[in-house]
Amino acid sequence: MTGTVTESARNGVDTATLFATLDAVKAAPQAAKFQFRADNEWLSGTHNRSTIHGFYGVGEERTHERTFQFDADHPAVLVGRDNGPTPVEYVLHALAACLTAGLANIAAARGVRLTEVRSTVSGDIDLNGILGLNPDVRNGYQNITVQFSVKGDAPAEKLREIVEQSQARSAVYDVITNQVPVTIQVTTG
Amino acid sequence: MTGTVTESARNGVDTATLFATLDAVKAAPQAAKFQFRADNEWLSGTHNRSTIHGFYGVGEERTHERTFQFDADHPAVLVGRDNGPTPVEYVLHALAACLTAGLANIAAARGVRLTEVRSTVSGDIDLNGILGLNPDVRNGYQNITVQFSVKGDAPAEKLREIVEQSQARSAVYDVITNQVPVTIQVTTG
Repeated sequence: MTGTVTESARNGVDTATLFATLDAVKAAPQAAKFQFRADNEWLSGTHNRSTIHGFYGVGEERTHERTFQFDADHPAVLVGRDNGPTPVEYVLHALAACLTAGLANIAAARGVRLTEVRSTVSGDIDLNGILGLNPDVRNGYQNITVQFSVKGDAPAEKLREIVEQSQARSAVYDVITNQVPVTIQVTTG
Repeated sequence: MTGTVTESARNGVDTATLFATLDAVKAAPQAAKFQFRADNEWLSGTHNRSTIHGFYGVGEERTHERTFQFDADHPAVLVGRDNGPTPVEYVLHALAACLTAGLANIAAARGVRLTEVRSTVSGDIDLNGILGLNPDVRNGYQNITVQFSVKGDAPAEKLREIVEQSQARSAVYDVITNQVPVTIQVTTG
């Protein structure tokens, strides 16, 4: 059964479990309701740290196998101490990661073996917005470009279709290109 | 001059440099054009890694003092191996980090000394969207909530105003609540 096992783990994706998960959610759509969280603590200046551990999904509270922590800061040129990337750089990482994970899953489901996937995500931002110096300039990225290099055992056309499907099903792509309502609550003292 | 130095570094923010930067950008608006980037490499399955190092700003190519790398993955319940947070969790971290950095800067500029800033960001997502099981369900977060706890040497009303101003000037808040155009280019073979 070695062949079957290898086939089942194409691209490192356990397609048998992937399809079983799809069937399980079809049978019980409520299982697909997830809540993700990040806890952040201010350290000094623009330096702060998020902790990611617990989340809710498939009907119960869960935790990642490890606790993940990430520092964010501004570089010196933006009056920080460069203890981590800027928050907006984490957004670019999230987009690349989401599209790439989807690509691997979709390729596996379509029987395509990938050999290499690389991407560079770049975002243009004009700080006249967040500095409050020009009301016509938005605070966030004006545009974002993703450059993918994809190699695998399928024709170029099929590889492109897999990227298109990943884009069509990406959570982070949706968050960035469409609007998500955000509510901010404040407790003081 | 100790008093002045302390005052100048309120909240760990070098306000003298912050105001000098504002004046410099006022005098030369082109200096505020930045480009941030993340390079991502697929590892296996939903596991991939981004590298963040170079960026463009204030008229030239620059680099962070260190090279930052971050792994993303899915937990086992989402057919991954939990080598890192999910891409959508990084988005929550980015939002918390951006609002918190802004809060520290704005408080410093307004003469408010902060003693503690904590936040929990949570995002609700229904995976019937990205699994392609329900066309009425979006791929991304349906809503995001930020709960801030802010303490400092100012009345509650003033602390709330600082959070509001941080929201009004946050790059990541803008990216999430408004639309950013994303272009995806693909090279194969």
